[in-house]
Amino acid sequence: MNGAEQLLETLVDSGVEICFANPGTSEMQLVSAIGNHDGMRAVLCLFEGVVAGAADGYGRMSDKPALTLLHVGSGFSNSMANQHNARRAHTPLVNVVGDHATWHLQYDAPLTSDVPGHAALCSAWVAVSESADDLALCGAQAVQAALQGWGQIATLVAPANHAWEDSTKPAPALDVAEMAMLSPETITAIAKLLANGKSTALFLGGRALREESLEAAGRIARASGAQLLCETFPARIQRGAGRVAVNRLPYFAEQAAEVLGNFEQLVLVGAAAPVSFFAYPGKQSWLAAEGCEVITLAEVHQDTCTALCSLAEQLNATEPGETAKPTPQQPPPVGELTPLAIAQSLAQLMPDNAIISDEAATCGLPMFPATVDAPPHEWMTITGGAIGQGLPLSLGAALACPRQKVIALQADGSAMYTVQALWSMARENTDVTVVIMNNRSYAILNIELARVGAGQPTAKTLSMLDLSRPDINWVEIAHGMGVAATRATSAEAFHQQFSDAMAGSGPRLIEAMVVQ
Amino acid sequence: MNGAEQLLETLVDSGVEICFANPGTSEMQLVSAIGNHDGMRAVLCLFEGVVAGAADGYGRMSDKPALTLLHVGSGFSNSMANQHNARRAHTPLVNVVGDHATWHLQYDAPLTSDVPGHAALCSAWVAVSESADDLALCGAQAVQAALQGWGQIATLVAPANHAWEDSTKPAPALDVAEMAMLSPETITAIAKLLANGKSTALFLGGRALREESLEAAGRIARASGAQLLCETFPARIQRGAGRVAVNRLPYFAEQAAEVLGNFEQLVLVGAAAPVSFFAYPGKQSWLAAEGCEVITLAEVHQDTCTALCSLAEQLNATEPGETAKPTPQQPPPVGELTPLAIAQSLAQLMPDNAIISDEAATCGLPMFPATVDAPPHEWMTITGGAIGQGLPLSLGAALACPRQKVIALQADGSAMYTVQALWSMARENTDVTVVIMNNRSYAILNIELARVGAGQPTAKTLSMLDLSRPDINWVEIAHGMGVAATRATSAEAFHQQFSDAMAGSGPRLIEAMVVQ
Repeated sequence: MNGAEQLLETLVDSGVEICFANPGTSEMQLVSAIGNHDGMRAVLCLFEGVVAGAADGYGRMSDKPALTLLHVGSGFSNSMANQHNARRAHTPLVNVVGDHATWHLQYDAPLTSDVPGHAALCSAWVAVSESADDLALCGAQAVQAALQGWGQIATLVAPANHAWEDSTKPAPALDVAEMAMLSPETITAIAKLLANGKSTALFLGGRALREESLEAAGRIARASGAQLLCETFPARIQRGAGRVAVNRLPYFAEQAAEVLGNFEQLVLVGAAAPVSFFAYPGKQSWLAAEGCEVITLAEVHQDTCTALCSLAEQLNATEPGETAKPTPQQPPPVGELTPLAIAQSLAQLMPDNAIISDEAATCGLPMFPATVDAPPHEWMTITGGAIGQGLPLSLGAALACPRQKVIALQADGSAMYTVQALWSMARENTDVTVVIMNNRSYAILNIELARVGAGQPTAKTLSMLDLSRPDINWVEIAHGMGVAATRATSAEAFHQQFSDAMAGSGPRLIEAMVVQ
Repeated sequence: MNGAEQLLETLVDSGVEICFANPGTSEMQLVSAIGNHDGMRAVLCLFEGVVAGAADGYGRMSDKPALTLLHVGSGFSNSMANQHNARRAHTPLVNVVGDHATWHLQYDAPLTSDVPGHAALCSAWVAVSESADDLALCGAQAVQAALQGWGQIATLVAPANHAWEDSTKPAPALDVAEMAMLSPETITAIAKLLANGKSTALFLGGRALREESLEAAGRIARASGAQLLCETFPARIQRGAGRVAVNRLPYFAEQAAEVLGNFEQLVLVGAAAPVSFFAYPGKQSWLAAEGCEVITLAEVHQDTCTALCSLAEQLNATEPGETAKPTPQQPPPVGELTPLAIAQSLAQLMPDNAIISDEAATCGLPMFPATVDAPPHEWMTITGGAIGQGLPLSLGAALACPRQKVIALQADGSAMYTVQALWSMARENTDVTVVIMNNRSYAILNIELARVGAGQPTAKTLSMLDLSRPDINWVEIAHGMGVAATRATSAEAFHQQFSDAMAGSGPRLIEAMVVQ
């Protein structure tokens, strides 16, 4: 058995079931090992940004690490923007990056670069194997590291010779570390704060946005009068009719500060304290009100569900919280194809347990509140702000959850970043409906231009933020990559096309010519 | 004047004329400054890999740095693969990367990452401005650094507040450092070696592959009997009828070693000693024959032209070297559309001074020798091996040389990496003819799979190297991005379509369904 085969045995043994790959010469033994092993599904992606984004989507929906197979520093760098989003989402993820054979590095061949240096920029754990025998052990450690807390990025750099040399050392799966303990004193202290009469919000993030945690949070809110807020860009939130609803903190800092101005106490549950996404001239980055006390119930990587349940118990909060009611039957939207009309179709037509990948940027802002009472569903957002997440994320989510409909709400500008994901959707016949919000601009930047006080824009300025000349035809691009596609220019047309997509299965793209 | 405006004045003053941009919120003042300045052309690219590759193409053809405008660490990481190629090509290039405002970094907002750490992986020079007043000075230093030697990557990280705060300090352009001196003793010593009767090759790279240097090398070859070889992946070589021809070192290590086995002496001129691109089990990475003496006439970043002319003078080598003869009139190729048939059409139809961007991978191997006697032209290759270079490179070259026809010979797999370049070609109406070599596979990896001894491939193994299921339709993709496109399935059809493209102007794509 060579090092690559031994590594693969260990990864499969450790519960890794799927590999998103864009390999090169340095990874050929790993490709071959995967090709010979029934325990690992292989999904080819035509760009590394798709690889990482798909692994993130798979990890967010399954809470298990996918494997990525990447080629040296350049291949890894292509994946880094979506690694960044995965890092911010606390997604478990194992990267295996092939590097040159150990003796080859000294020659500085054209593709040589500092692979561990690349990996360190976005990984919580990095190792370079020391021998063929060491490779599988590193693999076991990588999975262990990836599963620590809620999930982390673990990157194993595998010199090509360690993959092809003989390995005689099997490496069994390693135990995963327990989650960091919660302090009972903290729970008691926060229970007291919730009874002190001050206006309080629970600020929820990460795993605290799963149904069971939200149910406990709902009881706490009911018993204490605290309000429920969630971070602006959650990795995954379980919401919709019958579930406890939370208000999402607005993206724009002044709106967020206005919401937070209502609270004298903020209890963090699996979220960092709210800060502005960008800095703006003369504005504060810290968003909590002046004098607001910010206390942590559970850190990121702690067991938020137990924390919330314990707090509810301490408060004797047994009465269920307020849940979103199912939407009463509405007529289908008509007229101009606005983001709100799309959201109405979405709310009316999405099946139970749909998975939404939201990279709709400005178009997405009204969609989240408009779907609060839609059938129960999952909503994933762009955790790290690195655009090009949406299409790959929906690919990975669909592979993790083949029995759930995936809907990608996708801005045009960011769709272009990782457009290659469409091809893998077609190859894997994933049940993803992509809705491209075609407004022919980086609309968010037109807004930000004014907000940062950059002065009156000239035509040349605006040309750097606009996606026209030529207009992009998403139907043709989708067809070119093997995905069925249609265009909608009215709310009625969109409703019909989206209804067809929900009734059918397999990949499908709707180019929504939105009016904002 | 704010820091961004002051920086832009300095960059324009320093001779920077074009900016390839994919900006975000942190760069809005710079966008605005460019929008208000007639001295800087702005080219929007829909992905940062296109930004960097286009800047590389511009720099290779103009020997001047383009400016890139990139957004924080994630935007920079998207550009890194083509930055890597630019670094290997010794292209002058100035990156300006916006980062969060200085006081905002402490909050670890979603997009926060280590921007200078990203930059350091591929830049020869990195700075973070210390104030608004410092920003323009850093800009002047960046251009100075970019122009050092043959060219380098200089990356300036600009915190957003330095762009929007007032700047009162104009920063004039700085002088560019002289090239490293040549040693007259070295020239004398090498002149002696060339007379010692041993079999010798001049191994040429970088600037030594420009016409004037090659002319001198040709005289040296004629006088001394030395042969002329060049590196496998030159940044830019001036070749074709009437120019001194050099043999390109083969890509595959065993073929390269066979060629080099003929030489007892190797004189390096602007090239590193030849090494294998990848390592292979049981094979040597160092390619020169055992006992071969390897001597350097001129290092990378030295004046190779003066070095070769001085050596020729010392050898009294006045007789012109052998030049490629113009192709005698040939009938157009017929039958199957092979890479060789494409090369024949290319050689017969390309106009004088065409610029070839070669990322044709396996299809490109027979094309280089088959065009040795084509009309005089420029040939650029993938210097760093990071795929996704070809389309952006041709975009940038066309903007640098608007009166020259640009031809992108482009493998399908790597075309997909930075497919967004097509849109910018359409917007800028660049005179680029893209020839997609559609063989529906990562053909090179099928070859490498066997060469690294990865065993007998299964269907699953091969599925990770193959681009079918679904077949990609490049004509539709090109149309989707506003580029006129046709498909050719025979040599005759290709010849006709390519002939039309050469007669016309503006962007055009031919999907060549190649048989290998």
